[in-house]
Amino acid sequence: MKSNLLQNINNPTDLRLLDEGELPQVAQELRNFIIDIVSVKEGHLGSSLGVVELTIALHYVFNTPEDLLIWDVGHQAYGHKILTERRENFHTNRQLGGISGFPKRSESVYDAFGVGHSSTSISAALGMAIASNLKGDFDKHHIAVIGDASIASGMAFEGLNHAGVTDANLLVILNDNAIGIDPSVGALKNYLTAVKEGKNPRKNNMIKSLNFDYSGPIDGNDIFAVLKELKRLKKIKGPKFLHLITTKGKGLQKAEEDQVKYHAPGKFDATTGEIHVKSEDNLPPKYQDVFGLTILDLAKANEKIIGITPAMPSGSSLKFMMDAFPNRAFDVGIAEQHAVTLSAGMATQGMVVFCNIYSTFLQRAYDQLIHDVALQNLPVIFCLDRAGLVGEDGATHHGIFDLAYLRCIPNMIVYSPLNEMALRNILYTAQLGLNHPIAIRYPRGRGQIVDWERPYEKIEIGKANCLKKGSKVAVLSNGTIGNNVTLALAKMNNPETFSHYDFAFVKPLDEKLLHTILSYYNTIITIEDGVIKGGFGTTIVEFAAEYHCACTIKTLGIPDEFIEHGTVNELQQYCKMDVSSLVTVFSAIEKSLFL
Amino acid sequence: MKSNLLQNINNPTDLRLLDEGELPQVAQELRNFIIDIVSVKEGHLGSSLGVVELTIALHYVFNTPEDLLIWDVGHQAYGHKILTERRENFHTNRQLGGISGFPKRSESVYDAFGVGHSSTSISAALGMAIASNLKGDFDKHHIAVIGDASIASGMAFEGLNHAGVTDANLLVILNDNAIGIDPSVGALKNYLTAVKEGKNPRKNNMIKSLNFDYSGPIDGNDIFAVLKELKRLKKIKGPKFLHLITTKGKGLQKAEEDQVKYHAPGKFDATTGEIHVKSEDNLPPKYQDVFGLTILDLAKANEKIIGITPAMPSGSSLKFMMDAFPNRAFDVGIAEQHAVTLSAGMATQGMVVFCNIYSTFLQRAYDQLIHDVALQNLPVIFCLDRAGLVGEDGATHHGIFDLAYLRCIPNMIVYSPLNEMALRNILYTAQLGLNHPIAIRYPRGRGQIVDWERPYEKIEIGKANCLKKGSKVAVLSNGTIGNNVTLALAKMNNPETFSHYDFAFVKPLDEKLLHTILSYYNTIITIEDGVIKGGFGTTIVEFAAEYHCACTIKTLGIPDEFIEHGTVNELQQYCKMDVSSLVTVFSAIEKSLFL
Repeated sequence: MKSNLLQNINNPTDLRLLDEGELPQVAQELRNFIIDIVSVKEGHLGSSLGVVELTIALHYVFNTPEDLLIWDVGHQAYGHKILTERRENFHTNRQLGGISGFPKRSESVYDAFGVGHSSTSISAALGMAIASNLKGDFDKHHIAVIGDASIASGMAFEGLNHAGVTDANLLVILNDNAIGIDPSVGALKNYLTAVKEGKNPRKNNMIKSLNFDYSGPIDGNDIFAVLKELKRLKKIKGPKFLHLITTKGKGLQKAEEDQVKYHAPGKFDATTGEIHVKSEDNLPPKYQDVFGLTILDLAKANEKIIGITPAMPSGSSLKFMMDAFPNRAFDVGIAEQHAVTLSAGMATQGMVVFCNIYSTFLQRAYDQLIHDVALQNLPVIFCLDRAGLVGEDGATHHGIFDLAYLRCIPNMIVYSPLNEMALRNILYTAQLGLNHPIAIRYPRGRGQIVDWERPYEKIEIGKANCLKKGSKVAVLSNGTIGNNVTLALAKMNNPETFSHYDFAFVKPLDEKLLHTILSYYNTIITIEDGVIKGGFGTTIVEFAAEYHCACTIKTLGIPDEFIEHGTVNELQQYCKMDVSSLVTVFSAIEKSLFL
Repeated sequence: MKSNLLQNINNPTDLRLLDEGELPQVAQELRNFIIDIVSVKEGHLGSSLGVVELTIALHYVFNTPEDLLIWDVGHQAYGHKILTERRENFHTNRQLGGISGFPKRSESVYDAFGVGHSSTSISAALGMAIASNLKGDFDKHHIAVIGDASIASGMAFEGLNHAGVTDANLLVILNDNAIGIDPSVGALKNYLTAVKEGKNPRKNNMIKSLNFDYSGPIDGNDIFAVLKELKRLKKIKGPKFLHLITTKGKGLQKAEEDQVKYHAPGKFDATTGEIHVKSEDNLPPKYQDVFGLTILDLAKANEKIIGITPAMPSGSSLKFMMDAFPNRAFDVGIAEQHAVTLSAGMATQGMVVFCNIYSTFLQRAYDQLIHDVALQNLPVIFCLDRAGLVGEDGATHHGIFDLAYLRCIPNMIVYSPLNEMALRNILYTAQLGLNHPIAIRYPRGRGQIVDWERPYEKIEIGKANCLKKGSKVAVLSNGTIGNNVTLALAKMNNPETFSHYDFAFVKPLDEKLLHTILSYYNTIITIEDGVIKGGFGTTIVEFAAEYHCACTIKTLGIPDEFIEHGTVNELQQYCKMDVSSLVTVFSAIEKSLFL
């Protein structure tokens, strides 16, 4: 056994120089490399460990980057990145200025398509394959690697349905490990399990019904089996489908045993797998847990409450309610469209539905929100988790468009809580009955109030609050970014210049207070954790224009560009929304007032 | 045979008083009633004719409205409306103040869920069925009737995938007539055809794989067969699936023979089926044909051009290119999400992709537009057909949110042509290469220029144009609504007061011209065929705020409410955007200037 093959593999060409017999060693080294780095630098672990053999085999058998390889979602692409010229930068994964946690076209020619949201790979690869046919490039291969959770999403079905009637040179590889971030759900999952267990005869396979050349299931962690099958498939034209069985977390015992926790475990011991536990004593709660524990508490008293998550029971903390009320809390899989219309259907029957979707994923159900919920004015309660800048997941995952795309919809209430108490109280208020749909958006991560489980208070819909009274400038904030404003104002030399208002409701606006503010102050600053174009600040600007207010309005927020990855604080700095940037902005405005 | 049974059926209770033997006569009368009214009043014909027997059988066997019945899309629900208390109002179908062309909750207790966009019925019915279980109402039935084009959309798969693992009392009825508005496409369609032809053994059925109790296929136009099967299914608990074969247009020979044309044929002879042909001589073209004929023309010269439509080859007029270049123009079925990401995949390979989607349906692919196209800055050319108020299709179909939801996305170019020439020239310009995605939005129906096929001219991206120079007030219009402005100004007593600028680009803005306008005029009026909140006018207001311009800006457009059905002109009147309303608004502003 040669010592360290991996260090000499800078790209797939190097890999292809090895003998097949050396590939298991490469697999071992690649796995260790991923574990060593991720244990220290954090990131997504289990998915990449499961596809180490597949990753090596694909780059060994196919002629990447000429052959086009798309990793659905991309959590599983660390091995791919390491084998394709990014081994030495891999320690910068998900850091500001470092490589992205997801495949990304601008990062590497080996990343054929940027990913992040699920179930796009089949459509994208099919598009490439059809283009190759039109260009007369009939020998090019187009490969989509997709997990069993992602293939159950409607968009993947649409791709399969189209591909099956083409002669496109498309290979869809189902990486079936029976788990996404949380365990997979749904009838298709049960069907796939039956296939694995040999209960469905191959010739009547569902995938074959869609006119694919189906093969498998085979052991995707057996590198020789995978190599053999890929070589065979390479010779077959048209749409092909390979069903692989893999183990998420493969090679790290603890990761295999607790696949949910080791999806993205944080720092851990590279040898034992033991996760480095941080003390959570006296830390404020995650907003996710405020949601999860509050809905659980409310559901005990209000039996009409239902919770819905599309595939994020752990991430959203809906799992608390799912454990306590399994009949009333649903993980519907990666199916945001279905989740929203299902919620609408339930709401017609008088149920009080909390539909929890990450802000960035609600983009998947925008039509259903408009057409099935808002148009019928059904009082579905949307809980938009991970709103605003999300940090290390980067451009694909920031939840920054929601204020702009929601506030233009009639009947919607749009609310961003300032803190844990506000989130808790709006959840309480919403289930009392609002006669309108509401979107409640809150960020990823921890808040600021340790003793947040105080008695419920009803929130008055549409009411803004004065947090601090000042003389000359009014700062209007929306959501938790208002806490940055509070901190910044506390650092000012003349804080008495500034008033601070919490405009948690973007819709309906507190028009009465706004009239007062616009007539009293000459200078207004708005700030939001969302895009400046069309969001909260724009709402204030529109209002001022409507009533011919002559005051100066400065809008702070996320500029009109896609924001990359980094810590939330780093990204807030970039957008000039962190505490120290706000001190600078406020100071400059203060100075200009006295000139 | 009793004379006219239908006239005594006001609701399903009346229907249920009849003997089964009388139902064929009801079917005949219902069919005639639909034909008689639609031949004069226009509307959707073929779909409702195909399900006459099913409609009668459902209301006869089930206890509507206690049992909940959802018609997917709703084109086929005319018979349902007539049997459920709306026979006497049916002649007001699709008219302002009349009944809606689609089922609508606010219109009738028999309309369990509002529809219009496809593939929502399974999710909604499942939500209702789960709610019934939770409420202990185990005998209630929840029925979704869905066509074979709609069931191929991803969202329907998501609904089936979830339903299959529940014990919900859900009956999905597949109305399989092998056609949506245009003939159905895709691998699932081929599979269903094979099932119909007996080529797939029932026990290995794809739907059974999803854990449904599958029955069929049976002849859906044989009322006794349908009655018998519905009665049997009524006794079975859990998710059930009935596969019905029907004939679209059944009972009117011409409608059976040309199912595409008779989907919504306009006025026709009720006896012969002959469509009343209107002379099209010297009429300006439909914007759809400007798109369809121009892309065909461009595709002849530029072999990289590809056309994509999700299920609207006729409606969008992409059919011209599909006929001429079948390898380069694709109907992908009702699969907007797939259509957009497929386009993105093709664009990565250098293809010039025109992705034509109705504005209201692009809401279905909002995430794909952001995540797969704009984030990667792929130069996909989105052609948003039926943007703005669409008229008789009403609230579900107006394409009025697009400016608001598109302009907040980085990298996007957003353009609304003023007329046919501008549409033609922007299509020409876009295929030359813009290095950005572009959305080109244009309305349903005819434009104003008869001799529109003039030589191509390249459009300068981001440039606005002065259409008319005036002294005191600047009217800034976006898109074809600008023609209303021109007509209105021509009717003014003092037209010299008003300038008129065509701001076809909402993004990028013509900032240079805008600075000039804002410094010259004290009063600005903006107008757009879209929602006021967050659209074009808001863009101007944002800009004015950013540069501290003190001018008065009045924004005209669609108010913050859902707009119902009526003619486009009636709806423009309601929104005060028709020519005569504009004269009133402009006159009032003029008057105020001289006070």
